Amino acid sequence: MDSLSPSVQQRDGTMMRDLTWSHAEKVIAREAFRRALDREFRETITKTKEIAKNIEQPADLWELEGYLTDSRKEIDRQYDYRYSVLPLVFGNLVRRGRLRMEELSGLREDKLKAIRSYVRLFDDADAA
Amino acid sequence: MDSLSPSVQQRDGTMMRDLTWSHAEKVIAREAFRRALDREFRETITKTKEIAKNIEQPADLWELEGYLTDSRKEIDRQYDYRYSVLPLVFGNLVRRGRLRMEELSGLREDKLKAIRSYVRLFDDADAA
Repeated sequence: MDSLSPSVQQRDGTMMRDLTWSHAEKVIAREAFRRALDREFRETITKTKEIAKNIEQPADLWELEGYLTDSRKEIDRQYDYRYSVLPLVFGNLVRRGRLRMEELSGLREDKLKAIRSYVRLFDDADAA
Repeated sequence: MDSLSPSVQQRDGTMMRDLTWSHAEKVIAREAFRRALDREFRETITKTKEIAKNIEQPADLWELEGYLTDSRKEIDRQYDYRYSVLPLVFGNLVRRGRLRMEELSGLREDKLKAIRSYVRLFDDADAA
């Protein structure tokens, strides 16, 4: 996910930031976001404990520091709960296995279509 | 240890940076420095493993990151192997229990006097 620009244009020509979110959709989105973030943190905690357990040399300390700094920055970057970028954020989380499309069911088709479109876009970028 | 200025003047009027170190003294100093640094790293590694083991919440991750960053900066700052500041560096390490005066035996009296003087200075500063 190299860019989170809210002005990215979808394939059908509508702008992601022009999508409107109903109250019910916001509840679903908030819960899906929370779950993905929780998984992200649990994985980071598990990996941190594993790295720490294997520290033997001074250099290993700074390797752990680097891992934590990178993780914090990546989490800050990827978990951006603004409705104007949320389809892109969810597309990235689905592609990375943090979220399943089923957990987004209840969102209207305009959002789901946008999210699926970003998943494909990321897949294509990875394959290139 | 708020300053490592090499121009700090000793109580007897000689400048720390004007001390000359014989080859034998350099060998003793290098070994004492290495031991203190080794103790510092071992303590940091032990504490890191302990903090990591107790991580439960996301915030605990960034607390560990902060601990590692602070430790790295403190070690960089305190372990400065330049002969012009070494009496001050050793004075700080003795005061902090990383080094014993006995481990510096073999250094000439001008160095030992300077080191003891810094230990007292730090003690006075702590007591103030």
